[in-house]
Amino acid sequence: MSLLNTTKIAVIGGGSWATALIKILCEQHNVQVRWWLRNQHDIAHIRKFHHNPSYLSDVVLSPKKVRVFEKTTEAVKGADYIILAVPAAFVQESLQHLSARHLQGARVVSAIKGMIPDRNILVTDWVSQEYGIKMEDTCVIAGPCHAEEVALEKQSYLTIASTACPAAEDFAGLMTCRYVSAHALDDLYGVEYAAVMKNIVALACGITHGLGYGDNFQAVLVSNAMQEIGNLVTAMDPRQRNMSASAYLGDLLVTAYSQFSRNRLFGNMIGRGYSVKAAQLEMKMIAEGYYATKSIHELNKLHQVNLPIVGAVYSILYEDQHPAAIMEQLKKVLK
Amino acid sequence: MSLLNTTKIAVIGGGSWATALIKILCEQHNVQVRWWLRNQHDIAHIRKFHHNPSYLSDVVLSPKKVRVFEKTTEAVKGADYIILAVPAAFVQESLQHLSARHLQGARVVSAIKGMIPDRNILVTDWVSQEYGIKMEDTCVIAGPCHAEEVALEKQSYLTIASTACPAAEDFAGLMTCRYVSAHALDDLYGVEYAAVMKNIVALACGITHGLGYGDNFQAVLVSNAMQEIGNLVTAMDPRQRNMSASAYLGDLLVTAYSQFSRNRLFGNMIGRGYSVKAAQLEMKMIAEGYYATKSIHELNKLHQVNLPIVGAVYSILYEDQHPAAIMEQLKKVLK
Repeated sequence: MSLLNTTKIAVIGGGSWATALIKILCEQHNVQVRWWLRNQHDIAHIRKFHHNPSYLSDVVLSPKKVRVFEKTTEAVKGADYIILAVPAAFVQESLQHLSARHLQGARVVSAIKGMIPDRNILVTDWVSQEYGIKMEDTCVIAGPCHAEEVALEKQSYLTIASTACPAAEDFAGLMTCRYVSAHALDDLYGVEYAAVMKNIVALACGITHGLGYGDNFQAVLVSNAMQEIGNLVTAMDPRQRNMSASAYLGDLLVTAYSQFSRNRLFGNMIGRGYSVKAAQLEMKMIAEGYYATKSIHELNKLHQVNLPIVGAVYSILYEDQHPAAIMEQLKKVLK
Repeated sequence: MSLLNTTKIAVIGGGSWATALIKILCEQHNVQVRWWLRNQHDIAHIRKFHHNPSYLSDVVLSPKKVRVFEKTTEAVKGADYIILAVPAAFVQESLQHLSARHLQGARVVSAIKGMIPDRNILVTDWVSQEYGIKMEDTCVIAGPCHAEEVALEKQSYLTIASTACPAAEDFAGLMTCRYVSAHALDDLYGVEYAAVMKNIVALACGITHGLGYGDNFQAVLVSNAMQEIGNLVTAMDPRQRNMSASAYLGDLLVTAYSQFSRNRLFGNMIGRGYSVKAAQLEMKMIAEGYYATKSIHELNKLHQVNLPIVGAVYSILYEDQHPAAIMEQLKKVLK
């Protein structure tokens, strides 16, 4: 177990998903985690008690394997992998002190399911453009995986998607442990766009649930959503895909059918009559799907894919249309 | 509204799905429902109070449109459509007094999601063989649809599948009303085999839930199940299909994710340690998936499709294997 064989992994972000990923990494031999969190109080707490006080606070964060840092520039030093695990809306701000030089030699792994706001590009594309990282040195972690169940050590599966499988396979090895099975998939764009879309669908599921639609409707909504995701993904990167694979269908299911999904919860509040503003204030959290809806809507102006579910959610969130009326229209195009 | 334009529909079976279908039919003009139920007490109650005392007892069964019969031979007289809505295990017994002569001129609609036990053939194939009904005069009603939500008039969708679309489109018209949207699909075998398979998958979901597996695992199990269903269906009737359509994926979702699914509940009891016998006694109901598992397992001896989920459920239900050990093996082949 010499230091020479140690894999250094920087983790950027202090939320539940970051914490769950670090728990998995701590199961490996010869891994050193260099963790950047924004919250100073959390940093002090983790250093002293080896638990994240804000998220998954039961999880033990072995001090032998995990070091926390105030500065991103320190955290990424010498890292073999840099995992990005902040909301998409904050990724630019979180990485503001990093330049191409700091990231040199590292592979960048996005655990973010969203797009860069206003620029409407995927996180991996942004990293590649901003820091000159080659696309084959980026990958994404896709579910289906609730952080809470990783904390409970419930059997989970991850897909590591990239344009060049070897990098993804190496990283999949680091994400595999007693209760997690990870595999590599050669479809970066398909998996990343599907992950962005699923949060919009979860919003739609929440909105219709809030309006009183039942399980029968939800099953049809999710089936139609899978076709809509397939259509968008094909437009962005045409190729044959098995859309029933866990990285696409499974990822959608774990989000759309979960009571714990932030996106579903946010949608549910909208469906029950909250304004967008009120729902955001009440939740005190970012629902990725809110931003994703705008990004996909704008991106699609170029591509003109038929996306009725995205269109419905956009009308409700950004055009102040009444949820009941919009869903009344949507239900007529579903089958 | 002359009698000449009235469509006569015989319904065979007195359960919740039969009751829900009759509620939908009662929304149509010029429809006469001729309903056979086995239970004499229920027949007397419906004649007097216009409610089914045993299932969906809130649903009003208009006496202007619904007549109940003690004999199947009476119920099917002059019927344009005969809807079969008894459990697959009882279909032969329920129709024992009917001969080809009684069914002449009628289209047969299967609302049954199972296979004929021991013979391991689909209900529509059996009807065709037994009564000389042409395949183009049969169709199946597929979900995703809980009877309970139809009773509550929650927006639902049905797929009417057949080998010849015109018949299915006529019948889809009869199944469409304010809260139900039905459409025809030209894929009798695909829809029927998928409907049989989904009950086995729901058993697997129940078993793993009973064993303590969580939502992450369930999402992967369902994704893998969709691929397994696709493989079986392709083996039985090769053609291009959009497996994300409501008739395949939606039907599975509404069963696999419902707390009310009998199959899921049955599986859950097995997962929690009940014996098959004890679970059956406790439920006092037929879980279609129990019989479907045996039928598909035996059918597949000929076809040798890779069906790990069916195999796991079969080992547990019919080979007395321990659920935890079998699922421990299954989880290794999922991804």
